[in-house]
Amino acid sequence: MQQYFIQGKPQSPLVVTDKDTAKHMFSVMRLKEGDQVTLVFDDGVKRLARVLDPSQQSLEILEELADNTELPVQVTIASGFPKGDKLEFITQKATELGASAIWAFPADWSVAKWDGKKLAKKSEKLEKIAQGAAEQSKRNLIPEIRLFDKKADFLAALADFDRIIVAYEESAKEGETAALVRALSGLESGAKVLFIFGPEGGLSPDEIAAFGQAGAVSAGLGPRILRAETAPLYALTAVSVLLELSNDSL
Amino acid sequence: MQQYFIQGKPQSPLVVTDKDTAKHMFSVMRLKEGDQVTLVFDDGVKRLARVLDPSQQSLEILEELADNTELPVQVTIASGFPKGDKLEFITQKATELGASAIWAFPADWSVAKWDGKKLAKKSEKLEKIAQGAAEQSKRNLIPEIRLFDKKADFLAALADFDRIIVAYEESAKEGETAALVRALSGLESGAKVLFIFGPEGGLSPDEIAAFGQAGAVSAGLGPRILRAETAPLYALTAVSVLLELSNDSL
Repeated sequence: MQQYFIQGKPQSPLVVTDKDTAKHMFSVMRLKEGDQVTLVFDDGVKRLARVLDPSQQSLEILEELADNTELPVQVTIASGFPKGDKLEFITQKATELGASAIWAFPADWSVAKWDGKKLAKKSEKLEKIAQGAAEQSKRNLIPEIRLFDKKADFLAALADFDRIIVAYEESAKEGETAALVRALSGLESGAKVLFIFGPEGGLSPDEIAAFGQAGAVSAGLGPRILRAETAPLYALTAVSVLLELSNDSL
Repeated sequence: MQQYFIQGKPQSPLVVTDKDTAKHMFSVMRLKEGDQVTLVFDDGVKRLARVLDPSQQSLEILEELADNTELPVQVTIASGFPKGDKLEFITQKATELGASAIWAFPADWSVAKWDGKKLAKKSEKLEKIAQGAAEQSKRNLIPEIRLFDKKADFLAALADFDRIIVAYEESAKEGETAALVRALSGLESGAKVLFIFGPEGGLSPDEIAAFGQAGAVSAGLGPRILRAETAPLYALTAVSVLLELSNDSL
């Protein structure tokens, strides 16, 4: 069944005011009176709803659904600004794989240089991608998108996390394998986990040191060298496999 | 250090005859006499080599390297023909994540219809993508690419595997979580594992039944609905996390 996110508190009946959502519902999917969809309001609860009047873009809620597809911990992905449209790719795939937030920051070795105007435009684009991917993958929430203009602001935000893991290519090369599993153990349900990834050129020694001072641990993502846009997908899948699928899941 | 695959048995000195490889070495990277690279011949052993004469495209081998980045089991990814250039995407990412082979077959619900000529062209393109991704991610082998013209040939190939796992969206929806972990347990080092994925529309009931008769087990890939091109990446990462990173790794 098609799923849509609706901003605000749940109400019934309701009129869909968001242009893109209304267009998808009534022009693309051509929903008719009586057709059912899943709606997700700001409270993250899925609700079964039925179309009342397509010409009014109105629906009524039928019941709450128990379905919850969120990871047992809140995972934020933070990438050093990568080249081109890799952040668009990361946003789509990280949303499918359960990220709570997708952040990016100007890393020392970022080739991409994005200023205020470009960042605002990029943010807007990424928010739309995240919403579409969250609807398609049946998430209960749309990941937060946050692009930092200054690295200092990103560093200041590190204090909010219960665990910080730096994906460090050198760890992989050194054959350190169990660090990621250790870093993801002992977490309580709902814990806030941050994964930090470098841009194509990697993280600078200064950055590694600053993250370490904020309490970050380094962990490799297997022995193969992953591209900047592949590493976050590995990390999110590892969280799912270790905390959702395995015996000791939360 | 840059890595290149060289067809054939190891020899020293050697002359690089493959046009694309020679171009990358001496035109793109502008290797000079004495520069070092890693070469991987058909035996899958990495060897440190040194450029002798760039104008002759000649190198000599210095020593064997112990570095091995292959997964402890051989994983084949088989996707129902997906739309557009998704197979290109799957090939690049599955290579980075350690696949031994990347297959695709004409599934009942594949929208893409590829005939002999198109398949041959597609194969050639995918082989180049796999080689590039294998060099970049420092693999010891280039994954085999195989596009089946007929589904019957794909079904006949199932007998060669030690374990067959069908990524089944319905399993995920039903809340079955541990099936993947179970399906990946008890494997011996070097075991041949096949993951089967549907195209965008999923696998047909006939296909599910045929794979089941061949001994396949069904497993979900977490509670979120993954796109056709994301599911293989989840599966490969799960193999890495469970068999390379975890305590009970092979």
